[in-house]
Amino acid sequence: MPIDFRTDPARYRHWHLAVDGAIATLAMDVDPDASLFPDCALKLNSYDLGVDIELADVVQRLRFEHPAVRVVVLRSAKPGVFCAGANIRMLGQASHGHKVNFCKFTNETRLAIEEATAESGQIWLAALHASAAGGGYELALACDHIMLVVDRRAAVSLPEVPLLGVLPATGGLTRLTDKRRVRGDRADAFCTTEEGLRGARARDWGLVDEIVPPSRWEAAVAARAAALSERSDRPSDARGVLLPPLQRAITGDRIAYPHLDITLDRPGRAAHFLLHGPAGVPDLHAEGAASWPLAAARALDDAILHLRVNEPELGLWLFRTVGAPDAMLATDARLAADDWLAREIRLFWRRVFKRLDVSSRSLITLIEPGSCFAGMLAELVFAADRALANAAPIALSAANFGWFPMGNGLTRLATRFLGDALALAAAHAAIGRALPAEDADTLGLITEAVDPIDWDDTLRQLCEERASFSPDALSAMEANLRFAGPETMETRIFGRLSAWQNWVFQRPGAVGEAGALHRYGSGMKPVFDPERV
Amino acid sequence: MPIDFRTDPARYRHWHLAVDGAIATLAMDVDPDASLFPDCALKLNSYDLGVDIELADVVQRLRFEHPAVRVVVLRSAKPGVFCAGANIRMLGQASHGHKVNFCKFTNETRLAIEEATAESGQIWLAALHASAAGGGYELALACDHIMLVVDRRAAVSLPEVPLLGVLPATGGLTRLTDKRRVRGDRADAFCTTEEGLRGARARDWGLVDEIVPPSRWEAAVAARAAALSERSDRPSDARGVLLPPLQRAITGDRIAYPHLDITLDRPGRAAHFLLHGPAGVPDLHAEGAASWPLAAARALDDAILHLRVNEPELGLWLFRTVGAPDAMLATDARLAADDWLAREIRLFWRRVFKRLDVSSRSLITLIEPGSCFAGMLAELVFAADRALANAAPIALSAANFGWFPMGNGLTRLATRFLGDALALAAAHAAIGRALPAEDADTLGLITEAVDPIDWDDTLRQLCEERASFSPDALSAMEANLRFAGPETMETRIFGRLSAWQNWVFQRPGAVGEAGALHRYGSGMKPVFDPERV
Repeated sequence: MPIDFRTDPARYRHWHLAVDGAIATLAMDVDPDASLFPDCALKLNSYDLGVDIELADVVQRLRFEHPAVRVVVLRSAKPGVFCAGANIRMLGQASHGHKVNFCKFTNETRLAIEEATAESGQIWLAALHASAAGGGYELALACDHIMLVVDRRAAVSLPEVPLLGVLPATGGLTRLTDKRRVRGDRADAFCTTEEGLRGARARDWGLVDEIVPPSRWEAAVAARAAALSERSDRPSDARGVLLPPLQRAITGDRIAYPHLDITLDRPGRAAHFLLHGPAGVPDLHAEGAASWPLAAARALDDAILHLRVNEPELGLWLFRTVGAPDAMLATDARLAADDWLAREIRLFWRRVFKRLDVSSRSLITLIEPGSCFAGMLAELVFAADRALANAAPIALSAANFGWFPMGNGLTRLATRFLGDALALAAAHAAIGRALPAEDADTLGLITEAVDPIDWDDTLRQLCEERASFSPDALSAMEANLRFAGPETMETRIFGRLSAWQNWVFQRPGAVGEAGALHRYGSGMKPVFDPERV
Repeated sequence: MPIDFRTDPARYRHWHLAVDGAIATLAMDVDPDASLFPDCALKLNSYDLGVDIELADVVQRLRFEHPAVRVVVLRSAKPGVFCAGANIRMLGQASHGHKVNFCKFTNETRLAIEEATAESGQIWLAALHASAAGGGYELALACDHIMLVVDRRAAVSLPEVPLLGVLPATGGLTRLTDKRRVRGDRADAFCTTEEGLRGARARDWGLVDEIVPPSRWEAAVAARAAALSERSDRPSDARGVLLPPLQRAITGDRIAYPHLDITLDRPGRAAHFLLHGPAGVPDLHAEGAASWPLAAARALDDAILHLRVNEPELGLWLFRTVGAPDAMLATDARLAADDWLAREIRLFWRRVFKRLDVSSRSLITLIEPGSCFAGMLAELVFAADRALANAAPIALSAANFGWFPMGNGLTRLATRFLGDALALAAAHAAIGRALPAEDADTLGLITEAVDPIDWDDTLRQLCEERASFSPDALSAMEANLRFAGPETMETRIFGRLSAWQNWVFQRPGAVGEAGALHRYGSGMKPVFDPERV
């Protein structure tokens, strides 16, 4: 059964959302019997990918459907636990590929929570009335402020190393040192203490922001939420945009979305994306979810997630567009407005492009006659590992110079021209002009302008060659080459931390028959190779 | 047979060094029959760890023994090839641990080449009179300037991905994008083109700095070397310091060096380092290699390398010192001098401490009565994952505030107090004072001041607990927690790039029976799992 990333509140099994004016309360209440995996009881608010798919949906919906919400209070609906982290039986059963994809998606969701706080005026508050362990504490770490009740049991912990022989890799290690500035030796002590820390020490070490006695808990959470809401610039009187179920038709090897058609070439191990550009300038508020920028982003986002998890053998993604470049540039101009909805749509595309950056697929963009790689859609040229033009133009807009920073904090063009301010300035001076293939090549915006006579051969050769290479080596190479220049907490999470976790996820001490993930809960001790590598 | 990192020119099998005034010429001439591995003919200047051990020795000796050398011209003594990179049969035979350690050491050596250029006034010039492939080109990438002859065959290439299913992981991918600012899509094209690039295109893409026709080759190399030498601040009239063979006695589970004793506790999986501090202020030039700062650095450096490769089951390194803190502080004061030899010794310690940072061992520093964790030696407190004090003081000097930046570009104290300028200033204000355990604790300089009554129990518990954890999970955790804050090319090489290579080095497509490393040269195609992860 393919995993479906589309969901909506009516179908949620694991979360309750309640909105009261500027304050939303999101309560985690994982249904133990609703795991994606057989025999994985999701006890104690432990989670699998299905739980996180709903969380990602909530994060998204809050931003579009609830413009008035300024603070999201993250709680647990279970009295004895906040969240026990990723389900261990699931980790023991899942394939290496599923585990890696699971971590990638959960990391993206936690980064979306931080982005909502930083960019969108929806500030997340973690209210831990009971223990948060492993991924449960990492979820709290993604919030702007962490409150912890003081009682004999409520603790925060990252027990992965002592208990499971794996890493806290949903950003936990990186956020400890870089976001919360926990001293390295303390972080080491914390991460090797199975039971974690509680009370004053948890606060003094910087693991939580605030500790509260049980008697004052509800009042303190409400007061903190009210105080945080003052920082938000969300509009109070705007009408939200409802996100209806996303239409998708899968017929054989074709996937049809609004504005996006995908053809799967299984023998060639390739997925061909054809994105239809906008027909005119959207009326964002009137059209809502049907407006091109929002509908196309939803389609592309779902397609990336669907193919990543359900079509792992299609290692090559080829991007084509069809449409009017001028309409795309005019749409960009509309999206530049100082308007909460325009901002949300820009941020949504930012997240979609970032998903591409961390997708372990070779990305090839094909600029063909009739295409509309202009402005926002030109980011598909710059996000690609290779971009070839067949005598067709591209065009730049302001969107390419600030709307869509990569995880490294730079735009794709700034990353492309790392340290070459002249090249970047020349590109900037070309904003708005149709740039024929040769000009785009001269400006360094594409990989190659191919002679139309050679187009088919060039393309065939490139695809065949790419499909013949080691998929693992390509994934590793792309994960390095795509991120030139500075690193940020975000790139460190996807680079250093995730790469190490992927390594550990192959080691016998973690995933072998006698490894910690399999032996957990069995009463048998895991067996480790004593050699340090 | 343990691998010995100690060597000297009289024993070299693979390199010829010739010094002519300010210009040294280092010629690679790998002896095919002198591999560390059986049945690995090191043809075409391909290398294994043994070749790199000699290279590291040359880099080191040039700095100490040849103060007048300003430029090192790196060449090949074989007519048809510059260097073919790491030997593939070796990679196919070596254990996962050996491969990871091999890459770590070769990365350290290449970074030492870059440090010699940047900090020590010995500028490395790569003169490629023939093809440099894979690790061969990566070696050139570590040089300051790359010259390539223009003929029909001479090319630079990184064929690891298309040919071997692994990464160019001796810094190659990172140096392409970050050091040489090669555009990502061009780097992608280059790294997937087995035969590489040559001539004008190699120069235009930024893969080499200069191309030269064969007729002008020797003259051009000489002219370039002369020009580069102008940039150097090396003294012209100084007398070098000879590095005699390093004395080391291994007796059972004891290793004795000058100023350093190591006891191996195999049941406890621990190595106990005891470093003897200086007795007085050294006369650096008169004492030469026998001076405490140089002799102790050589001992510690060799010990780290020896234990890393030959004692992988000893996962815990404990550091103790014995000596007079005042003598250590006085030695620091002497080393602060503006003197080429003092500078070299400071840089040497910098590299030694950096080796600790990337050693996959748990590092525990024990501050006990009689110890001398002062100034330079206090870095062992800050490099450790945990530092415990048993009612004994430490002391700071200027050395802790700039001499020993980590790979991330920050001092260990700045990394420790990331973003907390007040804490850093408080530590700075404490320079020169003996800081009792409680004061050191209050200043955040140690992990814990332990009550002497509890010392033995605390230590036993810590060691037993640490030894019970998954060695892999610890390696991965430490590799993340030790590097808070900014990333540099260097940390990207050890973090992102190496972590991905370590991952690939476990994948069946690379190391399986039908993987590319095994099937290379057999005429049989490797078998890859088509799934992207």
